[in-house]
Amino acid sequence: MSSVRTLPPLAGYALALGDDALILAQRLGQWVARAPQIEEDVALANIALDLLGQARTLLSYAGTVEGVGRDEDDLAYLRDDRDFRNVQLVEIPNGDFAVTMARQLVFSAYQYELYAALKGSADPTLAGLAGKAVKEVAYHRDHATQWVLRLGDGTDLSHARMQAGLDQVWPYIGELFESAGTTSQLPGVAVDPSALRPAWDSYVTEVLSEATCRTPEPRWRSRGGRDGLHTEHLGHLLAEMQHLHRSHPGATW
Amino acid sequence: MSSVRTLPPLAGYALALGDDALILAQRLGQWVARAPQIEEDVALANIALDLLGQARTLLSYAGTVEGVGRDEDDLAYLRDDRDFRNVQLVEIPNGDFAVTMARQLVFSAYQYELYAALKGSADPTLAGLAGKAVKEVAYHRDHATQWVLRLGDGTDLSHARMQAGLDQVWPYIGELFESAGTTSQLPGVAVDPSALRPAWDSYVTEVLSEATCRTPEPRWRSRGGRDGLHTEHLGHLLAEMQHLHRSHPGATW
Repeated sequence: MSSVRTLPPLAGYALALGDDALILAQRLGQWVARAPQIEEDVALANIALDLLGQARTLLSYAGTVEGVGRDEDDLAYLRDDRDFRNVQLVEIPNGDFAVTMARQLVFSAYQYELYAALKGSADPTLAGLAGKAVKEVAYHRDHATQWVLRLGDGTDLSHARMQAGLDQVWPYIGELFESAGTTSQLPGVAVDPSALRPAWDSYVTEVLSEATCRTPEPRWRSRGGRDGLHTEHLGHLLAEMQHLHRSHPGATW
Repeated sequence: MSSVRTLPPLAGYALALGDDALILAQRLGQWVARAPQIEEDVALANIALDLLGQARTLLSYAGTVEGVGRDEDDLAYLRDDRDFRNVQLVEIPNGDFAVTMARQLVFSAYQYELYAALKGSADPTLAGLAGKAVKEVAYHRDHATQWVLRLGDGTDLSHARMQAGLDQVWPYIGELFESAGTTSQLPGVAVDPSALRPAWDSYVTEVLSEATCRTPEPRWRSRGGRDGLHTEHLGHLLAEMQHLHRSHPGATW
């Protein structure tokens, strides 16, 4: 049995949000030195840093609530893939730049609504994090929006790539709005993700329409990331991310 | 004949400093998602971002001075390795964490003295950049110093790794203090790098002594980075860095 399943609900909730941020930060970090412009290289690195900051707060808090002495590094580097609670959307490979921006648009638009609601949480740690993070994510969402508009409403080729990028990430959006088991056990503290969908739909639909892209209608959907069911890609990402720490705990050799 | 050789001296000087920052930023970016702690991941990404910011200022300025319409992206993505003027130190592979920190110590200590002197340049753009960058680099130098002390004066294994890291980068430090051709043509504007060596020696020697490491005495030394002579590693790094931009100029597809 996975150790995550036995966590206190609040620790599990903080971990789910923290893992989303941590894994996407790693994916965005893989763009560094590969972006199409130096300015974009800087932008992606800054977004990754914002997400790492959110992840640190959330993982530390999960460790504190759990109360068995695990810190942010233990949680980031010493869990196996089955114990990660992130949605599968953040673990899929970057693909080309259009795929990365499609994912960034849908994820940032989700995170924006999430943090805007979480500002009102009865938990002061979560409310404080959300108040700070919602400002960062407003920028991430705007940045992705500008790229989706530029590529979608650009040349024939850029439009085709943007549409293909959207088609590729759409099967993964359902998980974002599913109530994980822990959410319903934390009334007034956690946000019910299904309540975020209408505002998300409205924002994303308008961007796609302006970008002259159609809303994809995927024929399958991902499931189970919040319960520790992941794609093979997470295993590869964790192998890379955890290798040095596991070889040299605390890097103290 | 390489196009760099025909640049105005001031453009060549700005390029040399900018290329150092750009290439090391790319190397540090390769650590993202591979660092031993989340905190370290954040620190390395922040250092890379500082260096990218310096590179953007310096490459843009080189393009302006050159006056043939090349912007920072043209200079970063459309030059071949023979036209890069960085020292070879910044292009060598990261190696393990101790090698990366050894390089960061010697390079940051050099850049600190460089920018401290360049603040007094008669060129207002270079003086302005240096005044801002020297504060960033003071942090980079301190960060690397802490790691060298921690690993050097740590366990037997960490000490051996730190010493091996220092041994590996020492053959590359001579280039840092060589007057490139352009420096002597820019009196009052450029800094004579050989004048930086005593302060650098004094700082680095004290760190190594505190870290219980010996100063390496390498049996060979690198030459020629400032004249466009590079290791094979730069070619691989540029292939990765330039691929997307060259495939899709301006990322407008």
